Amino acid sequence: MSDRQPSGFTYQQAGVDSKSGSRAKERIGNLVRRTYTDGVLGDFGHFGGMFRVPGDSSQVLVSSADSVGTKVLLAVHAGRHEGIGIDLVNHSVNDILCCGAKPLFFLDYFATSSLDEAVLTELVEGMSQACRTAGCALIGGETAQLPGIYKESTYDLAGFIVGSVTADQIIDGSRINAGQSIVGFKSNGLHTNGYSLARAVFGLDGDDQAGIRVRLEEFIPELDETLGDALLKPHTSYLSVISTYLESGSVAGLAHVTGGGIVGNLERIIPDSLTASIDIHAWQPGPLFHLIQSTGSIAASEMFDVFNMGIGFIAVMDRPLAEQLVEVESSAAIIGEIRESDPAEGRVELTGIDG
Amino acid sequence: MSDRQPSGFTYQQAGVDSKSGSRAKERIGNLVRRTYTDGVLGDFGHFGGMFRVPGDSSQVLVSSADSVGTKVLLAVHAGRHEGIGIDLVNHSVNDILCCGAKPLFFLDYFATSSLDEAVLTELVEGMSQACRTAGCALIGGETAQLPGIYKESTYDLAGFIVGSVTADQIIDGSRINAGQSIVGFKSNGLHTNGYSLARAVFGLDGDDQAGIRVRLEEFIPELDETLGDALLKPHTSYLSVISTYLESGSVAGLAHVTGGGIVGNLERIIPDSLTASIDIHAWQPGPLFHLIQSTGSIAASEMFDVFNMGIGFIAVMDRPLAEQLVEVESSAAIIGEIRESDPAEGRVELTGIDG
Repeated sequence: MSDRQPSGFTYQQAGVDSKSGSRAKERIGNLVRRTYTDGVLGDFGHFGGMFRVPGDSSQVLVSSADSVGTKVLLAVHAGRHEGIGIDLVNHSVNDILCCGAKPLFFLDYFATSSLDEAVLTELVEGMSQACRTAGCALIGGETAQLPGIYKESTYDLAGFIVGSVTADQIIDGSRINAGQSIVGFKSNGLHTNGYSLARAVFGLDGDDQAGIRVRLEEFIPELDETLGDALLKPHTSYLSVISTYLESGSVAGLAHVTGGGIVGNLERIIPDSLTASIDIHAWQPGPLFHLIQSTGSIAASEMFDVFNMGIGFIAVMDRPLAEQLVEVESSAAIIGEIRESDPAEGRVELTGIDG
Repeated sequence: MSDRQPSGFTYQQAGVDSKSGSRAKERIGNLVRRTYTDGVLGDFGHFGGMFRVPGDSSQVLVSSADSVGTKVLLAVHAGRHEGIGIDLVNHSVNDILCCGAKPLFFLDYFATSSLDEAVLTELVEGMSQACRTAGCALIGGETAQLPGIYKESTYDLAGFIVGSVTADQIIDGSRINAGQSIVGFKSNGLHTNGYSLARAVFGLDGDDQAGIRVRLEEFIPELDETLGDALLKPHTSYLSVISTYLESGSVAGLAHVTGGGIVGNLERIIPDSLTASIDIHAWQPGPLFHLIQSTGSIAASEMFDVFNMGIGFIAVMDRPLAEQLVEVESSAAIIGEIRESDPAEGRVELTGIDG
């Protein structure tokens, strides 16, 4: 993408080299596949790992591992942690939802330089709240104090979710066809991706703790809230809204917009020979994305690579259902359509990006 | 325990306050229980979280989250990472084995300051190898680069395992009775616990990378190997040896000896009104534990609190089976017995500790 970025920050400069991450993922894939047993369904790289329930071939377990990333550093600066617990659970719930699965249980891994019980309790309060909303049992977890590994006053929070779906209701994109509509569901902010870049843009990534706290508490007229409130909004869960439409059997594909943005995540479910064409003028990303782009002089293509740009979840479905859905759901909009692809064309195309 | 330690290191001094960790665990427990749904079996604090398979009441899923802890810092110094991947999987396999469960699938979470693909590949090689041995599919994982959270050149590796057991074969300690024997299975070293203390004792916890590497490569006559080889031995899996005896139906309780040592872990499965009496002269802990104790001038009680002391896994069973087992399994020894407890007596007693 670098040829499309005349100036400004790139994700690499902000400290996260996502290309290096992709290469490693490929190498891991080969080692991982060697472990596959008869229970495994699907392949490496989906939103959730699928495994047949032992003794019951009609049920499939769907699992996912995630963390919140550098958003926790903003939580540390702001002294507000409950939202991070919600972030982690909702991120995980959305991931397995992409396979059509509903959550069964969740486990967390919390590691820190030095245990602060108040912080941990806030995190568990957030996880407990989000788990109850999702009907998901928080059945385990591990707490580790590792002062040699974690920087002072920091922590990491990872989560593992297991859900289930009946085998004939798995959604994996294979039923996506030309002519179907792409429905986008609004995000309420950055969710849990792009924080390395956002922190760099707003000068929230240095060692000046007091200065960062002041900046986070600053009221920003364009946002109609403080920068901290805007950046720390908990990740939206799409379980409730999507569940309503899963039973129709007309949902062909689901994608959670996380690292890699709309293109990187939608690509994961679009079959060969089809292209998902997204019209980026079909929705308004919201003021936070505009503020990040203008403050950091970031190219639109880079913005779409790193951030969800206002769309947190995507569903592909027949046009009649899509039209009916967006009438009812104010958080949803038809943002594109599926068409046959020309040779050598990508699986996802953003139209209007340079407009 | 501090009144029994006239001198030497304590675990607190070495950087891990396990009492603080215990308090937080209690508070978490209350928040966690609020999320419990109908599928949850058992209570918070077991080795594995248990959940009924949806649509099949005969099968129970058992899950656990873990990390390797500060042993990774030694791996970083030594430049040897494959064993850490084995550590993580085998630790997890042993945890759910305590409920009688055999592994189905595993996910990992790897986070680091800056991704080194060679390190990650070694770790996944270790996980892949241990998963194949355990018949466990490595079906997912997450890789995160978080330079603001992780110290330079360090990483953390957490894992999440799901296994299954038929409901009538769950082992939870409830069938433990007076007169039964306690069988200990030998560990091959520290496994994954007590590394903060061990590193402090051997002077492996400073910033002198070159000096630490030299120490790790030093041949130690008492150990008949280098310090690095002794300290980096991968965690033993007890799946194979224990599986042989699970089918007899005579195994009443299983405990994985991790943080908290023999007492802290055996306590988790011993019912009220019973005491597990362990004779610490029934086995030889092995030269590494002697070397740590003498080098650090550590009290025996502290050693037993922090380290596995040569026993990595414990099974409680009827005496005839125990006697038959130790005839066949050279890695096992009868290390104690279950008896009715006197009022106010603890669930686990170590005899001979001051002898």
